[in-house]
Amino acid sequence: MVLLNCDMGEAFGIWRLGNDEALMPAIHIANVACGFHASDFNHMRATVRLAKRHGVAVGAHPSLPDLQGFGRREMKIGREELANCLIYQIGALKGFLDAEGMVLNHIKPHGSLYGMASRMPDIAAAVCDAADVFKVPLLGMINTEHQRVYTARGHRFMAEFYADLDYAGDGSLIITREHPPVDAEAAAAKCLRAVREGLVQTLAGNDVAVGAETICIHSDTPGADTLARVLQERLAQAGVLAAAQ
Amino acid sequence: MVLLNCDMGEAFGIWRLGNDEALMPAIHIANVACGFHASDFNHMRATVRLAKRHGVAVGAHPSLPDLQGFGRREMKIGREELANCLIYQIGALKGFLDAEGMVLNHIKPHGSLYGMASRMPDIAAAVCDAADVFKVPLLGMINTEHQRVYTARGHRFMAEFYADLDYAGDGSLIITREHPPVDAEAAAAKCLRAVREGLVQTLAGNDVAVGAETICIHSDTPGADTLARVLQERLAQAGVLAAAQ
Amino acid sequence: MVLLNCDMGEAFGIWRLGNDEALMPAIHIANVACGFHASDFNHMRATVRLAKRHGVAVGAHPSLPDLQGFGRREMKIGREELANCLIYQIGALKGFLDAEGMVLNHIKPHGSLYGMASRMPDIAAAVCDAADVFKVPLLGMINTEHQRVYTARGHRFMAEFYADLDYAGDGSLIITREHPPVDAEAAAAKCLRAVREGLVQTLAGNDVAVGAETICIHSDTPGADTLARVLQERLAQAGVLAAAQ
Amino acid sequence: MVLLNCDMGEAFGIWRLGNDEALMPAIHIANVACGFHASDFNHMRATVRLAKRHGVAVGAHPSLPDLQGFGRREMKIGREELANCLIYQIGALKGFLDAEGMVLNHIKPHGSLYGMASRMPDIAAAVCDAADVFKVPLLGMINTEHQRVYTARGHRFMAEFYADLDYAGDGSLIITREHPPVDAEAAAAKCLRAVREGLVQTLAGNDVAVGAETICIHSDTPGADTLARVLQERLAQAGVLAAAQ
Repeated sequence: MVLLNCDMGEAFGIWRLGNDEALMPAIHIANVACGFHASDFNHMRATVRLAKRHGVAVGAHPSLPDLQGFGRREMKIGREELANCLIYQIGALKGFLDAEGMVLNHIKPHGSLYGMASRMPDIAAAVCDAADVFKVPLLGMINTEHQRVYTARGHRFMAEFYADLDYAGDGSLIITREHPPVDAEAAAAKCLRAVREGLVQTLAGNDVAVGAETICIHSDTPGADTLARVLQERLAQAGVLAAAQ
Repeated sequence: MVLLNCDMGEAFGIWRLGNDEALMPAIHIANVACGFHASDFNHMRATVRLAKRHGVAVGAHPSLPDLQGFGRREMKIGREELANCLIYQIGALKGFLDAEGMVLNHIKPHGSLYGMASRMPDIAAAVCDAADVFKVPLLGMINTEHQRVYTARGHRFMAEFYADLDYAGDGSLIITREHPPVDAEAAAAKCLRAVREGLVQTLAGNDVAVGAETICIHSDTPGADTLARVLQERLAQAGVLAAAQ
Repeated sequence: MVLLNCDMGEAFGIWRLGNDEALMPAIHIANVACGFHASDFNHMRATVRLAKRHGVAVGAHPSLPDLQGFGRREMKIGREELANCLIYQIGALKGFLDAEGMVLNHIKPHGSLYGMASRMPDIAAAVCDAADVFKVPLLGMINTEHQRVYTARGHRFMAEFYADLDYAGDGSLIITREHPPVDAEAAAAKCLRAVREGLVQTLAGNDVAVGAETICIHSDTPGADTLARVLQERLAQAGVLAAAQ
Repeated sequence: MVLLNCDMGEAFGIWRLGNDEALMPAIHIANVACGFHASDFNHMRATVRLAKRHGVAVGAHPSLPDLQGFGRREMKIGREELANCLIYQIGALKGFLDAEGMVLNHIKPHGSLYGMASRMPDIAAAVCDAADVFKVPLLGMINTEHQRVYTARGHRFMAEFYADLDYAGDGSLIITREHPPVDAEAAAAKCLRAVREGLVQTLAGNDVAVGAETICIHSDTPGADTLARVLQERLAQAGVLAAAQ
């Protein structure tokens, strides 16, 4: 059964991003920013509370240290240093979960860190080093270095499919600075195929294998709340949507 | 029996401060900076490991958000926002304690936050809000607002005496930008009197009541390691020093 | 003749704030954030270019170092340190003005710094210390410490009136976390009275003296662009609006 | 005639690095950190004043945005964004030069940015975009992409030789986390050969061509002040040292 996930709490200080209030009721698990690409201590508290109100499980969404660049700048960073960087962020989020009587559900690296972990064994190993501390599942894409390393290290791997991003011919995600609007019904059909057949058609026209234990919606995709509702409906109709938490 | 405590891990990035390696063997409990006035994810990890090697218990030393000012700028901050700020930092430190199989021992606010909590009930209340999450003792000075608030809120209060700072006539601490060198024997005598009589002579010449369940040495006081050794020796000779952990 | 001014470039990284594109055509002078409460090197460049395209003169809008708090936290900071803090920010903005062949037009402190300068001579003196370097007018409110200090130090003082904020009985501004929507016609009438009579009615019902060489509109006030157009029209009809640059 | 240069002002907040006071009398030009890998508004002011006192010309030493990593993390950054990042820093430094009645003397990128500019034309082009605004010479190493791009763009290029670093077989610098101590006389001999013959022996044993219009000493090399004095003496004896400013 499929879980819907969403990157949440990506505001910072006075600035807002995405419509967390509208999306939270539609999802099962939230990946909460930890202050290194977005969020701060106030938004983290508020986001954890919002998730709690809607029975949504909370995972950590840690990043490279790059607030001004929203964690989208790849950078050279050693394995030990990166592991420390992640433990700091995940520990901070866990503080807010402790405050609300919740437990950490999973870890999903953000942005460039996610992409780097999918290609570079050393980066994936640093993610595992941090996950060893917290002992929760790791989200990622199949047929990647992070799947290989996470599972080799004995971590529970949750295969993730992206409802609102395109895939390149080699199966990699196409990340854009601003998420373009998507047609909700087309996205739902794409997700259903990913769930049932384990395939997605890339922009190059070929099919590639994908895993879809959980489907990600970006909170800053225009019309994200509509997309979430349509997805919810179509996946439920197809009998593949997990029950609400 | 008296415990020696020290603010530790106050390096940042490439920059160093204090001689943690020399002091760690001499103390019982370490107050570890959490990245908001000093330290970062690498120094926190290293400091926690150093403490573990020497059997030193680790507490959190959170601060106002003020890295460039070393947490010495008083600022207006609301109670809820401050509580969030502290939970973030303490949670992050707890991540590293989890990584090393250690537990959080206590909380001691840093710098201006310490001073503000000692005078302002709202600030002390925010410290308690954070301490409610982690359920550990709070360090502070007697006859202050923070003692009153912490104990009223049911937290275990540990009375702290400063070996290397002077006290003003009203019993408040005199904080200086750079800690001046101190005469180790004179400091030891001052500490012994604080422990035995609960008194210290202020710069104004009068005696004020002090508590000394734990004695603080600053790692950046010139000759801090000598001071620590002398204190250790004199307090042990007097039969008031707690056993090594 | 009255100039319209607006705080601009208050985005940060991926986050947006205010509708600079809509407002820039309506104003004479822009107060551009310098990276300490908002903005960054990219948004500063873009804002300076936008101002240039619309013939809008650019001033610096420096802040206390407080990005996460949007410069709204008052903090204790010494005069010399604050002067340095301001020179850094104004110099950085001047780099972008140099890049676009423009000159620095004025300085207007942001947020809590503006309020502190209006009450505390030492803070106003630090603003003057920075203004001595750049030799441009300073914006502020009449009957305040900053007016007194700026003029005593020989700086050109430009009296500013706020179209979208209320005044308290003592003539001070009422700053709110989020700017409430305002009725554009009522605001225009208030501004016209400020210009013609030098008076505004406070929330307490009394009139206080105000100066209105320039009128400020906040870019994040809901309906700011409508407010700007209405103000422009009414002030022009009344024959008190300065010509477009 | 050879100029001695040194990276200066690399303190941050309470933390110190290098002995600027001891080195400043020995050098001709100082590369002053601009707050992105080190320094802050206070240290920049103090460093500019120190340089002024000793008649030392001041250039900008801008960095990638990486304070915690001391500008040593390579990161992906677009040309326009990087140019903006540099203009911000150089403009900020120019504010302090304006304050002291000094002019900007040159630009020397720091750390990983220096290395990236020496290999990647796009990064070198961004440095030129920033230098176009300030119209001062650029420091770099010969036979590199940055020499090629800077000179092709019409900027004055100053060839730099490193007294306290080793060269790899391909002529690139070997950057270490902490600068090891160097033998001052051996370093002086190496510098003299670089000046007279335009050659240095690499760690691989071969000679590579180097330029040495200016020689760099790192302020955090152990014994940097002795090295500076010995270099000064030997270069002066050889008749190749520029006169004091």
